[in-house]
Order: sequence, then C-alpha cells, then structure tokens
Amino acid sequence: MSEMGGRRAARGGGGAARRAERTAVSLETARFITRNIPDFEVLNAEALEIIEHNAETVLEEIGVNFVENPAALDRWRAAGADVRGERVHIPRGLARKLCATAPRSFTQHARNPERNVDIGGRNLVLAPVYGPPFVRDAAGGRRYATMADFNNFVKLGYMSRWLHHSGGTVCEPTDIPVNKRHLDMLLAHMTLSDKPFMGSVTAPERAADSVEMCKLLFGADFVDSHTVMTSLININSPLTFDGIMMGALEVYAAANQAAIISPFIVGGAMAPVTVAGTLTQVLAEVLAGVAYSQLVRPGAPVIFGAFVTSIDMNSGAPTFGTPEASLITYGAGQLARRLGLPYRSAGAFCGSKLPDAQAAYESANSLNMGLLSGVNFMLHACGWLEGGLVASYEKFVMDADQLGILHGLARGVDVSENGQAMSAIREVGPGGHYLGCDHTRANFKDAFWRSDLLDYKPFETWDEEGARDTQALATIRVQKMLGDYQQPALDEGIRDSLTDYVARKKASMPDAFL
Amino acid sequence: MSEMGGRRAARGGGGAARRAERTAVSLETARFITRNIPDFEVLNAEALEIIEHNAETVLEEIGVNFVENPAALDRWRAAGADVRGERVHIPRGLARKLCATAPRSFTQHARNPERNVDIGGRNLVLAPVYGPPFVRDAAGGRRYATMADFNNFVKLGYMSRWLHHSGGTVCEPTDIPVNKRHLDMLLAHMTLSDKPFMGSVTAPERAADSVEMCKLLFGADFVDSHTVMTSLININSPLTFDGIMMGALEVYAAANQAAIISPFIVGGAMAPVTVAGTLTQVLAEVLAGVAYSQLVRPGAPVIFGAFVTSIDMNSGAPTFGTPEASLITYGAGQLARRLGLPYRSAGAFCGSKLPDAQAAYESANSLNMGLLSGVNFMLHACGWLEGGLVASYEKFVMDADQLGILHGLARGVDVSENGQAMSAIREVGPGGHYLGCDHTRANFKDAFWRSDLLDYKPFETWDEEGARDTQALATIRVQKMLGDYQQPALDEGIRDSLTDYVARKKASMPDAFL
Repeated sequence: MSEMGGRRAARGGGGAARRAERTAVSLETARFITRNIPDFEVLNAEALEIIEHNAETVLEEIGVNFVENPAALDRWRAAGADVRGERVHIPRGLARKLCATAPRSFTQHARNPERNVDIGGRNLVLAPVYGPPFVRDAAGGRRYATMADFNNFVKLGYMSRWLHHSGGTVCEPTDIPVNKRHLDMLLAHMTLSDKPFMGSVTAPERAADSVEMCKLLFGADFVDSHTVMTSLININSPLTFDGIMMGALEVYAAANQAAIISPFIVGGAMAPVTVAGTLTQVLAEVLAGVAYSQLVRPGAPVIFGAFVTSIDMNSGAPTFGTPEASLITYGAGQLARRLGLPYRSAGAFCGSKLPDAQAAYESANSLNMGLLSGVNFMLHACGWLEGGLVASYEKFVMDADQLGILHGLARGVDVSENGQAMSAIREVGPGGHYLGCDHTRANFKDAFWRSDLLDYKPFETWDEEGARDTQALATIRVQKMLGDYQQPALDEGIRDSLTDYVARKKASMPDAFL
Repeated sequence: MSEMGGRRAARGGGGAARRAERTAVSLETARFITRNIPDFEVLNAEALEIIEHNAETVLEEIGVNFVENPAALDRWRAAGADVRGERVHIPRGLARKLCATAPRSFTQHARNPERNVDIGGRNLVLAPVYGPPFVRDAAGGRRYATMADFNNFVKLGYMSRWLHHSGGTVCEPTDIPVNKRHLDMLLAHMTLSDKPFMGSVTAPERAADSVEMCKLLFGADFVDSHTVMTSLININSPLTFDGIMMGALEVYAAANQAAIISPFIVGGAMAPVTVAGTLTQVLAEVLAGVAYSQLVRPGAPVIFGAFVTSIDMNSGAPTFGTPEASLITYGAGQLARRLGLPYRSAGAFCGSKLPDAQAAYESANSLNMGLLSGVNFMLHACGWLEGGLVASYEKFVMDADQLGILHGLARGVDVSENGQAMSAIREVGPGGHYLGCDHTRANFKDAFWRSDLLDYKPFETWDEEGARDTQALATIRVQKMLGDYQQPALDEGIRDSLTDYVARKKASMPDAFL
C-alpha cells in the first residue's frame, strides 16, 4: 500500500479518485494465473544432472561470445572469467553463483495497480504476440503491419479478459521510421491500455527512451524502485550475446527493470537436433546471460527464457506444436526452477498461414505445454500466425478465448464439501438427472468454463445462421471489440508529457528505415 | 510364439507363408505407444482418499440399479450385496475386492499378429471415432452415414500410420437394418483391415454374433483362450446398468473378451457440476460395473472407462476440450491406476460443426490430456466432429496426423551420449549453425516429428498453390488414401465362411429399423 501511496503522490493530486473512476469503467481482466496443479516434468534426476553438468562444461570449455562489447568483457574478467578475444570462458559454477542474486519472483507494476502482475513462483502471466512484420485479417488478407494495426492490437489486448499483459511489439509498425517507432509503440501501450507492457530492445538508446517514458508515466521515484517493464532480450544462439541486445539489457538491468533473457532456437539450426543437447545449450546461454545481468546490477529482475522450436528437415521451415518442442519446454521449466528463476516460454505458436485447424492444433499443443511446464511469463499467448511473421486479428481473439481454459485448468480440483457434491448424488440417485438439483442450481454459473467465441449452438441454428467457421465468428468478435473499445482514463498532465516527449525525440533525429 | 503356432494351425496350411506375404504389402503402422514420460496428476493423496471413500459411500448407501436383469440381481445377492428391487447396495469394500481379479493389462490379438496391442501399463492404444449417425466431407456436406462410408472409414483407419486399432462403429451405417448392420460392420473390420477391432454391444445376441464371427476369423480354440475384441459397454449414468448393455457385457466376459466399462457423462446432466463429484460418481459406477464383470467371469479383461465432458449451461450442449473435462480425465486416470485397471478416456473431442479451428483447439486439448492422463485405450482418437454426431472424413485424417505427436511426446528425453550432443555443440561453437554438422547429419531423419498433412511451405509457394487451408489439404489426403488403399490379404476359406455367416444370419430374420 505504501508503494501505491508513493506512486500516487508522484502523480499529483486527485489521482486516487481518478484511478477509482477509470477502474470502474474499464473491462474485467482476470487476475494472472496461480497454479493449483503440479508441473509436468520429463527429466529425471539423472537427466537433470547430466544436462546441468554439460552446460557448465559448455561455459568453461567452449565459452560464449560477447561481441562488440568491451565493457562486458571487462565485467567478465573482473568476475573471474577467462576472456580470450571476445570469447568468455566461464569457470564451472561461476555463472550459477552469479545468478543467485536474481530474484525468484518480482512484481511488474501497471499504471492501473489492479493490473499488476507477479512473475515467478506458481504464477503464469499471459502476454500477446511479439514481433510480426505482417498482419492478416479475413477482409484485408496479409499485408505489412502499420501503426494503425499496432493500436488495434493494443486495444484488443486491453479488451481481452484472459490477457494480463499488453506485451511489446504486438506487430511492427512498418509505416513509422525504425528509429522512431519504439516511441509510438510505447505511447500506445501507455495510453490505449492500462495493463503492464514491455520496453524497446532494438538499441540501447531506445531502451533508455523506454525508461524515460516510464518515469513520466509512473513518476521517476517510482520507476527507480519498482519494475514497470519486462523486456525481451534474445540471445543470438548458439552462444553469442550481441552488443545491441546486451546494450539494452544493460540499460534495463541498471534501471532495475526486468529482462527476459532468452535463447532463440530453431532446433537443428541454432542448437543440436536432440532435446537434451538443446536443453544443455539453452541452460548454458541463460546462465551466461542472467549472470551478466547480475554483473550489471545484482538483484536486477530477470527471467529464464526459452524460445525453442523444431525444424522441418525437408524445407528448413520452423515447425510448431511438435513433440520435440514440448519436451524441451517441459525440460527447460525444470532447469529454470532448479536455478530459482521465473520462466518464460511457450505461446500460441503455429506455422499455418491461416487461422485454420492447423493453426489451432499447433497453438493448443503449445498453450497446453506452456501451462503444464510451469511457464511464468508466456509471450505470444495470442495472435501468432505463420511462424511469427504475421499478427492475425482473428487468431488474436481465438487464442485469447482459449487462454480462459488455462485459467480453469490451473484451478485444480476443489475437494471441499461443495466440491464433493455428495448431496447432489444423494438427491438425484440412480436414473435421475442433475440439471435442476439444488447443488447444480447453486453452482452452475461458475462450474464450467465457457467460450465467448466458439459455437455451441444446435446444428440447425448454426446452419441457419450461415454455417460460420471459427474464423468468421472471430472476424465478428474483432469488429465488436474494436467497436466497444473505450480508452482507459489517464491524467491529462501525464498524457501531455508523454506526447511531448515523443514529439521532441522524433524531431531530434532524421527518419531512418534501417 | 506357441500361441501364434496354434492359431496358424487352426487356420489350415499355408497360412504362415500367406501372412508373411500380406505383411509385406501392408502399410506401416506404428507400434502402440509405450510412455517413457510420467503421468500428470491433479489429485493429491487427500483428494484421492476423499473421492474413494465417497464412491464407496455411494455404492453402499445410494446403490446402483441393475434394470431388467434378474440374473444380475441374483449374482449380486450371491456376492453379498443388499438387493432391494432393482437397486443393488454394495457393502463398502466389496466392489473393489471383486475388481481385484481383473487383469492389470491384456493383449488384444489382431488377425495380423504385428497389429496386436497390449492394453494397460504404460501403453496407449489409439482407436478411431465411434458411433456417429452422420458423416461429413467438404464435397458432400453433412449427411446420414451409409455402409459405403463405414467401409471408407475402416480403410482410412487401416491406412493411418498412427492408429493402432480399427475401432467399432466408426459411423452408423443407417442404410442397413438395425438388427443386421453389426454383421456388415464386423465383416468390414475383419476383411478391409488387419488391425484389432471392437464387437457389437447393441444387443446380447449381436455380441454373440461378434464372438461367433471371431471364431471363424481366428479359430474357435484361439478365441476361447485369447482376447480378440475390446467392446464398449456404456453405463447409463447416473448409477444405472441397463439390461442390453449388461447382456452384451455378460456375453463378452463369459467369452473372455474385453469390455470397456464406461460411464457416459455430460457433467451437470448425468453427474454433478463439480470435478470431485463427477469423479466420485465415475468411480462408483466403474467399481460396480467391473465388479459385475468379475462376477460373470473372474479374470475377464475389462477397462476402466470414463467418457466425461462438460455442458454449456446456456444451451445445454455438451462442450469439449474444456478445463473441467481435462481435470476429470487426469483424476480418473489416477483412480484407475490405484484400482489396477487399464484406463479408457479422451479422444479428438470437439463440438464444432466443421473441421475448423474450433474443432482443432478442442481436439488438441483433449488429445494432449489423454496422453498425459495415462489413458491406455483412446477411443475417438480421430474423426470425431460435432459432439460425436458426425464422423468427418477430413477430420479423420487431420486428427490421425496429430496422433503422431503423441507418439513423439511419449518417447521422452534421450540422455544417451548421442542425445547429449556435446560433440555437436563443440563442433559448431558460438555463432555457428548446426545444419551441416556431423551430429545433425547422423540424426536428422528421426530427430523431429513431421506432419504428413500440415503445410510447412514458404508463404509464396503456399499462396501460388491456392492458399489452401487444412480442410482442403485433408480432402486431398482422404482421396489419395482411399485411392491407394489395398485390401490386406485374407485366407479365402476364412473370408467365405465369414461372408456365409453374415448371409445366413441376415436371411434368418426380417429387417428391423428400430
């Protein structure tokens, strides 16, 4: 409460009342998931020890490259690593020891405190697709993404009940210069939604802009002492940490902002074709990256990331929803928990070009494994299409609806007296039915998850209404959600300061499209 | 081996050579799944004890009805139950004690011994959809199923690599009289496929026909001593065992043929709206049904069945792929294992009218939970559409393709030296790629599961080829499979005796369509 008090004070008078008001008009968003079910684990003790041993061998004997980043090499040297050129050999045990200062879990604050998320432990926070240069919808087909699309996806995310996080680059606004689009993207997340969001990582100075804009939104004091962004730092697998990503990580870690440190692996290309080999490399990379974050600022919040999928050896295309990807995701969760770090993986992954059955099979496989593998932060939880090249409007709402299932599964089994339902079984008895019994009437509203999108109508009704498939239903839902959208209230002074910052920064440099 | 020797002898000379020949021309079918991964368990020790205690309370205090079946009441009375009218009150502990004679696992023999399946333990046997009165395909839409459709689905099942079992009523051949269609269905399974199959349960005399035809196919001696059918005995939930189903069960148990004893539950209608309440009722029903099978013949092979799904409280429609259904399926698996019985549940369930994204989300949710819940026999593993009202040609091949994923997941993680892939990580090093390294070249063929159906092509190629969705690809695959189909060889004498039996039985009674 004192944190919130401090934050309100930083924003000036009247904030509390205004916040209460805007909370009242905003839509219901489910609290982040807290699992009441166990994790599914595929590695036994022997396998875990082998992989952990091998990862240390990789770090010590093969080493990792920190490229174009002399300061990083200095930090590693000072920490006791053996640095040869840009290759950092990390003595067995050192990286894991450095990782120990990273928090086991942390809170990412949203401008609406009701949307704060706790990342780590038994929790699962869901965030939308990240990074696609294209968008697709049924009416307009596949096309380059624009800022208008970006705004739409932020609005859909805000409106999505089961989505806890506004995400980051929900699509690439290709109509905005590369060196300026991060400003518009941040402004959109800050003003069109009140859910937590991610910062820019495409250059260290853009990460710095992200921090500056957060200071305007949350207050400078608040940002110094609270995590208000979780940003995505990809590792250049295999075993390479490039200067740009590490530069962004340095900015965020120094500012106590969270970073997902995430190998980006298509198995067979950026890692070995085997599950155990990939897990070994993933662990080595995360150990090195997280250790580095703690060299920058001990205690900086970080997440054990693993974007891992398999490859079609015929075409070279990445493939999704495959058994190998699932086994890696389950295994990486075990490694993350043993390391005591929050875990990011999974998403509504698919390779399909359309929001069709292929997309749904692949996505459901990935979403289920994400819940059961103990993921704490799931990026790409909705909207991902075509291997991540496309943000799909229809698939965004289709996936977002499915996320409700993860909430229901995570609740586990209620064995209270009401859950046992013996009174119902006694009341109904052999040959009866439960539709009208007391217990059913008392419980039916919350008893079963219900889709807001899928078709449950009798065949005849469905047929008369046009025999629509899921995509057609989703098109209607997208239109309705964007039509119903209402912007969450924001202090005018804060809004002006943000708009002013963006305008000033944009004016300070020429457009660049590379 | 001696079993097979005896069986060959029963079939007359030349069988062995002919069997070798037909094995050579038949298509590859994967061996049934043996899990090298753990089960996912949602009930803790306390929850298990509560549910097991409550189930015994249900049996003792509420009781179960065995209707229109005086012999069953006699059996229960003799076993020590308290029978009042048709209501059987089973003293606490009695049913579980009777269940102890049922085998923990059993082999169902196929006419091609390579297709034998071991049901129970860590195994998972996959069988197609069962029971739909309608079929659907893209060209013909939704229509009543005919015998021609039935034959097509048996052929597709035979051709499906990941399907271990030919199933039973893959669709209802509505153009054949109700009292005769079981004969044609059995003949189709026996002659168009060489995979194991199910017997008829719609009347005790039809179950007897099933046994008789098996004696012709396998030899009478063989059938007396081996299980050659696994048939589906539904319980009339709540807590009612009707005379027809029990009559069929009696025939099969007496003949040492396997029965799935399966509550059929739409939660909120045939069971309480809570997970724990439903599990209690499921357990009570299975305990009573399995105990009864053991009263008929101790040692008769039976399966703990659970067809359980949730209901849409708005429309009353059954819903599939829901979190509640998954929790029940996970929990029932635990109860089955504690009872020491093989477990039947899950399937490619969906409520969708079309093989679209809804169908795929719901089905993938159900298939994944089926694998992880420890199911040993999965009916409806492919082809199920519209709540089971429709057998879909396209969805049959779409689901059947997804079943490959379950095989891959079940393999678990290889931590052999080759699996560890340290040689690859050393060879490639930071910044390299694995596509051409020795380890990749040695392993790529089997490294990743690959769909035979889904689209992995680059966007441009896919677009030029007509931008087909999954259903369109599936239509092509159905046509190709039916075009490529070759009937597995069968001894002419056996075939004639089967055809003759069917003709004789059909001639012996007038057509009945009710």
